Amino acid sequence: MKNRTVGIVGAGQLGRMMALAGTPLGLEFVFLDPNDDAPGAHLGELVKGPFDNLDALQELANKVDVVTFDVENVPASALRKIAQHTPVWPSADALNTAQDRLNEKSLFTQLGIPTPKYIAASSLQELHSAASQCGFPCVVKARRLGYDGRGQRFLHSPEDIEDAWDSLNSDSLIVEEFVNFDCEVSLVVARNQNGDVARYPLALNTHKNGILHICEAPYYDDKLSQLAKEHADKLLNHFNYAGVLTIEFFVAHGQLLVNEIAPRVHNSGHWSIEGAHTSQFENHLRAILNWPLGDTSPRGHSTMVNFLGGMPAVETCFSVQGMHYHCYGKSNRPSRKVGHGTIVAESREQCDIVLEHFNSLYQPEL
Amino acid sequence: MKNRTVGIVGAGQLGRMMALAGTPLGLEFVFLDPNDDAPGAHLGELVKGPFDNLDALQELANKVDVVTFDVENVPASALRKIAQHTPVWPSADALNTAQDRLNEKSLFTQLGIPTPKYIAASSLQELHSAASQCGFPCVVKARRLGYDGRGQRFLHSPEDIEDAWDSLNSDSLIVEEFVNFDCEVSLVVARNQNGDVARYPLALNTHKNGILHICEAPYYDDKLSQLAKEHADKLLNHFNYAGVLTIEFFVAHGQLLVNEIAPRVHNSGHWSIEGAHTSQFENHLRAILNWPLGDTSPRGHSTMVNFLGGMPAVETCFSVQGMHYHCYGKSNRPSRKVGHGTIVAESREQCDIVLEHFNSLYQPEL
Repeated sequence: MKNRTVGIVGAGQLGRMMALAGTPLGLEFVFLDPNDDAPGAHLGELVKGPFDNLDALQELANKVDVVTFDVENVPASALRKIAQHTPVWPSADALNTAQDRLNEKSLFTQLGIPTPKYIAASSLQELHSAASQCGFPCVVKARRLGYDGRGQRFLHSPEDIEDAWDSLNSDSLIVEEFVNFDCEVSLVVARNQNGDVARYPLALNTHKNGILHICEAPYYDDKLSQLAKEHADKLLNHFNYAGVLTIEFFVAHGQLLVNEIAPRVHNSGHWSIEGAHTSQFENHLRAILNWPLGDTSPRGHSTMVNFLGGMPAVETCFSVQGMHYHCYGKSNRPSRKVGHGTIVAESREQCDIVLEHFNSLYQPEL
Repeated sequence: MKNRTVGIVGAGQLGRMMALAGTPLGLEFVFLDPNDDAPGAHLGELVKGPFDNLDALQELANKVDVVTFDVENVPASALRKIAQHTPVWPSADALNTAQDRLNEKSLFTQLGIPTPKYIAASSLQELHSAASQCGFPCVVKARRLGYDGRGQRFLHSPEDIEDAWDSLNSDSLIVEEFVNFDCEVSLVVARNQNGDVARYPLALNTHKNGILHICEAPYYDDKLSQLAKEHADKLLNHFNYAGVLTIEFFVAHGQLLVNEIAPRVHNSGHWSIEGAHTSQFENHLRAILNWPLGDTSPRGHSTMVNFLGGMPAVETCFSVQGMHYHCYGKSNRPSRKVGHGTIVAESREQCDIVLEHFNSLYQPEL
């Protein structure tokens, strides 16, 4: 087996889990990260530097066979430059689109993928106009750099607009129709340069305070799965995509409305480590190396729960039979994702029993 | 979750797989190994030095909360010394017994665990006498440092004795009755200091040229499983054992005869990475940290195949659906274990179909 070296921009928990999945494949890893003690930094070589520094990105690229990223705040222009001599997957184009909610929504419109009504706003006046066109309640979001509910505000009525304008402090906003959805689901899908595609089953996501709290898979709904597949295919083909792509949907009135995409492995795919025959991390690596993709079919039912602020105590972790623990090696900080646990069982009901046992022992921060 | 640091004597594939299993538990690793490029060396800090150097072992011990080993050729006396200030599990006593086939067999006899007839020999004359008492064919083995069929010779008749004596070149030998066994099985079992015990199902081992080739689990036989449990309990209690213990048995006439024990994670437990709810590597770490042990029940049927000399080509590895690949990052060398693959499916028959497909694409060295 030829040894390949993968460069990862960002040594966060996603980079860490990629390295843990890729090491058994014989891969070696080089990370670019400003922090020595980033979660994945000790699992490979570290190029210490900021994500937006072209020299540091070049240094990373020169050491590896392929570059990928575990963070989205990498300048697409810099990735385009390094892609001239080292393959970068997913492509800078895909990242560039995902980095800006307006670009993202415009692409959905262009490809005929249903998405909530949206209107851009770059001034307080435009914000007023956009909100009244979308109707109340609606949501105003910064076009760039939002995640886990940050950079967005609900607008219940016109009176909320000025506060939102002041607190978001950006002239690059998008107002979106509020969707009274039944639930949120996501699709994690991998594609390689040969055009092979491997789709995970839909996962059902439950958020708390704007942050993913619980993710359950598989979420069986034949009609929605087929719709999700069609939407995903359009996006994958548009970008001639390689790597894992995650698409988050609202489910409303039996239809899917795409909320956003992430051109990377995703929190809503963590269940696949134990809950699928091949994890999203392994498939992402196989995809960017243009290797055949692995079996994405589920192994029973999985329920993943995020740990925010701090990990449960060791005694809690290991006294609950049936939960797999993933500690990211991060220091504690309010609302910070520091780890997750995954229960895998024969059925959703059995997962719920383990989760209830766990919840009886653990009082999470949120 | 408190961060703990585990010291591992030896950064071979077993240490590598321990680190891969322990990182998600929030553990950090320090290895002692003479080689910078040992399979696990890059997954933690490396103390560079020989396994038998007390200063190097002390340096390792001073950096960690608990010491374990992935090699057996560590002087038990040195481990006893470092155990005075840092816990060492499994204990030096268990290692000391396993290091010497005569000590091992004597313990089996002492505990009433059936084992093939054996007689020690320390001279050519004693070898003649021992062989004639055991009867032909029989097997002569070096008491120490044998593995994967090395350090042993078959004696078909008295004419073979002198050659064996010359080639083994040791005055510390043991002659063992040849057992015309039906099959070989092994039991991997974990115990922590609280006395909690977690047993994997029996695995069926097929060797080729003295080296484990294929391991299938679970091997269901209620009577043998019960016998194996009883034998294991005696050994675990004798040593007040902590960690994973592996016991290899011959199956003959519906009975178990213990062949040897390994006070460590074992090749015949690798299937548990994908094939059990908790891998032997995770359970070994939980056991030596005195944490509650994880569920050892199987997830379907597993068939593991060792790769010797070199890994299959990337194209072969990833074109076979249903095989999980583990490359140890070792350079190629004849007969060297450089990796393994594990098939997990609903049944043994389904595993066989995948293995046949794989075998049609891959011509192994042996």
